[in-house]
Amino acid sequence: MSTPKPSIPKGTRDFGPAVVARRNYIFGVIRRTFEKFGYAPLETPTLENLSVLTGKYGDEGDQLLFKVLNSGDFLKDVQAEDLANEDGKATRRVLPKLAEKGLRYDLTVPFARYVVMNRNTLVFPFKRYQIQPVWRADRPQRGRYREFYQCDADVVGTDSLLCEAEIVLMMCEVLNGIGLTDFTIKINHRRVLSAIYQALGGEGTEVDLFTAIDKLDKIGVAGVQKELAERGFSEEASGKLFALLSVEGSFEEKLERLQAGFVTAGVDADNATADGYKGLQELQRVFDYLRDFQFGEFNHLDFDVTLARGLSYYTGCIFEIKINNVNMGSVSGGGRYDNLTGAFGLPGVSGVGFSFGVDRLYDCLEELNLFPAAVATTTRCLVANFDAEAERAVLPALRQLREAGVASELYPEAGKLKKQLQYADQKGIPFVLLQGSEERAADQFKLKNMTTGEEKLLALEEVLAELAK
Amino acid sequence: MSTPKPSIPKGTRDFGPAVVARRNYIFGVIRRTFEKFGYAPLETPTLENLSVLTGKYGDEGDQLLFKVLNSGDFLKDVQAEDLANEDGKATRRVLPKLAEKGLRYDLTVPFARYVVMNRNTLVFPFKRYQIQPVWRADRPQRGRYREFYQCDADVVGTDSLLCEAEIVLMMCEVLNGIGLTDFTIKINHRRVLSAIYQALGGEGTEVDLFTAIDKLDKIGVAGVQKELAERGFSEEASGKLFALLSVEGSFEEKLERLQAGFVTAGVDADNATADGYKGLQELQRVFDYLRDFQFGEFNHLDFDVTLARGLSYYTGCIFEIKINNVNMGSVSGGGRYDNLTGAFGLPGVSGVGFSFGVDRLYDCLEELNLFPAAVATTTRCLVANFDAEAERAVLPALRQLREAGVASELYPEAGKLKKQLQYADQKGIPFVLLQGSEERAADQFKLKNMTTGEEKLLALEEVLAELAK
Repeated sequence: MSTPKPSIPKGTRDFGPAVVARRNYIFGVIRRTFEKFGYAPLETPTLENLSVLTGKYGDEGDQLLFKVLNSGDFLKDVQAEDLANEDGKATRRVLPKLAEKGLRYDLTVPFARYVVMNRNTLVFPFKRYQIQPVWRADRPQRGRYREFYQCDADVVGTDSLLCEAEIVLMMCEVLNGIGLTDFTIKINHRRVLSAIYQALGGEGTEVDLFTAIDKLDKIGVAGVQKELAERGFSEEASGKLFALLSVEGSFEEKLERLQAGFVTAGVDADNATADGYKGLQELQRVFDYLRDFQFGEFNHLDFDVTLARGLSYYTGCIFEIKINNVNMGSVSGGGRYDNLTGAFGLPGVSGVGFSFGVDRLYDCLEELNLFPAAVATTTRCLVANFDAEAERAVLPALRQLREAGVASELYPEAGKLKKQLQYADQKGIPFVLLQGSEERAADQFKLKNMTTGEEKLLALEEVLAELAK
Repeated sequence: MSTPKPSIPKGTRDFGPAVVARRNYIFGVIRRTFEKFGYAPLETPTLENLSVLTGKYGDEGDQLLFKVLNSGDFLKDVQAEDLANEDGKATRRVLPKLAEKGLRYDLTVPFARYVVMNRNTLVFPFKRYQIQPVWRADRPQRGRYREFYQCDADVVGTDSLLCEAEIVLMMCEVLNGIGLTDFTIKINHRRVLSAIYQALGGEGTEVDLFTAIDKLDKIGVAGVQKELAERGFSEEASGKLFALLSVEGSFEEKLERLQAGFVTAGVDADNATADGYKGLQELQRVFDYLRDFQFGEFNHLDFDVTLARGLSYYTGCIFEIKINNVNMGSVSGGGRYDNLTGAFGLPGVSGVGFSFGVDRLYDCLEELNLFPAAVATTTRCLVANFDAEAERAVLPALRQLREAGVASELYPEAGKLKKQLQYADQKGIPFVLLQGSEERAADQFKLKNMTTGEEKLLALEEVLAELAK
């Protein structure tokens, strides 16, 4: 009987040693940055109750949740008549009987659930970061996976705009930390968008307006105008919109000009959620914080009035990062929300957070050739294995290498040196240590640099000094 | 409408910041040790095809696999007649129509699958470690979870006993690294067990014999004797068994005495799989390797003839670690196998590996109070927030703290100092930095040590020097 070839599910990936090393390099920079800013790690289970997940991501999200079959007799509550599908609702009827758990879909909902479940013991403001995989039953395609990591940092229980300013600092620190220096942090405010909608005179819906604006990058001004017309916005409203969206100048000049535009358009300062003036003030406050921090990278910051970031739960500042000169969507985004925990019965908790997309950062670094060479491998030294006697004799040296913190391995079998050197080469091990009978008689070692090909005859202490560099 | 209280599935856990920090401390020691010995990281997907998982863990294992419902119209192939359960096989009939993916059950089968899928590009011997969660639909109970981490290291493609010796070194290094010093590494050999079975004269089955021996710890000699009698072993065989199991002495003395016992019992040296002499020779070889390594911890090593480690796929040396004076099962185990990849069509690949149970290590450290205090928190300094002006003024200092690598946060709101100190205290932040108007005028800071209560008036450079310690 032939054995079928094993495979992995569509949209999932194995990460071999070289890729894990590179991914861990990115995770490490993100983790250290989050911690440096006082964010502490949280981990939530892969399995969540469907009662927690369902209804939090919209209808499409519910479809994309991976559901886990109940264990034991999962059919015990399913009746033959449940399968009848004349009404097209069979799966909806049967699902709750088959599955009560699902896989984590993002890190935000589990975070909100955690905060609510631990509201009495947590110390607020609660700053947490979370780096874990999530799962989506999406159609796999290039760059889109069914299992991928998110790296979130959020603080809840304070509305201080210091948090927004520090998000900008963290974004810069992470990108600089992995060598990405040409990027733009776009920032906008949900209330500025609402004020713009108000300024147009109440035509159409806010949702339609933002959906159209969100596409500006892709379909251009003419495309957005066409879409707005289709959705019931007059030509006049469309004209007002582009007058507001086209403000230019520095961060602070834009704030000023938009303020003037809002006054001209008669934007109401008393409308609690649509108060665009408050949005502008908050953006100014974030800017002031950054100046007080002696932030030196204002060139990366762009007040982008066209940034909408979907329609989800954001209520204040919103952020997005674009790596310039790379054909790739945003690598990071986030914003402030006022009611994340409301769905679990705890209203009025304001928070702000953001997230890095590690797969996209990885692809950027690869495309720009920015991974440091040293990241590729973990083993630093291969000790060659000549024969049983040489193998025995070299073990104390191997022990001392490891004690000095030098990741080292002895080729486990005596054999052709060529094969052993190939092994080191293919695994990217930078040094090979050799001790044949001659070197052993002289109590010395030959250290071969696999990059340059250079060989040195050294005493053990010299080898240790060379490799511990 | 009242919102239902959110919860997490039975057998799963949230890990808050303090627990994550402690778990990462253990993971860090394990990871560094594995890498120091030349093992490189591998990560496989959470979702595996059920065709890969099913049949690899026995019938009970198949039951305990979490299965993931197909996405979209998961009912499309299920017929009403499939539900009929007169034969008790409805779930077995329906399962393949509902689910083709499952959650990773261990790290060994995905490793074998990975090796087979990448056989043409991998460099052998292939040394990998893997630290990832696994899922089992087990009945949750104290210390047994449905989602838990495994930490595996395996090398395949060599039968060198150097690997076994290095496993002993890694076990010692990890345990010493986390402060566990009173432990026993039990070691035995599958062929020694087979030879013992052979020495008894061919009564009963090998499986029954090993199952009984495995219980020696729990049910004692009399219990094992009783069980053996029930399973068809004569009193004479039982007597021979305990004569062999009761060999005493040092590691090497036991090897010698067992060798003599095998000769007396007429154990056959020509039986390929039951050749106990070869098992003894291999154990001696591992011992010799350790001596050549100048291994200084033979006191931890115990040649335990009663160690059976289930019946799974082991064919050579087997290992298990017991932490002494703690009421806890083994925290680590492993062994050599000769046919791990055979199930996927690649026979003849010998390998050896072992695994740490992080939950048990965690519980040991907690019970023995061995977690270093510094592991509890990530933030090292809280900067107090007096008022808007003080907040602005202190931001450059905050920036410099972080630039010096000191994880620091500014309390995000001006407010009662008492509340801010409480925040630091409850989060375990060891230092609070204060700059009121007086200190600001003098360009100084007050640094409060939260452990001792001591306060020092310092210039910023002195603060940095103190905190970077």
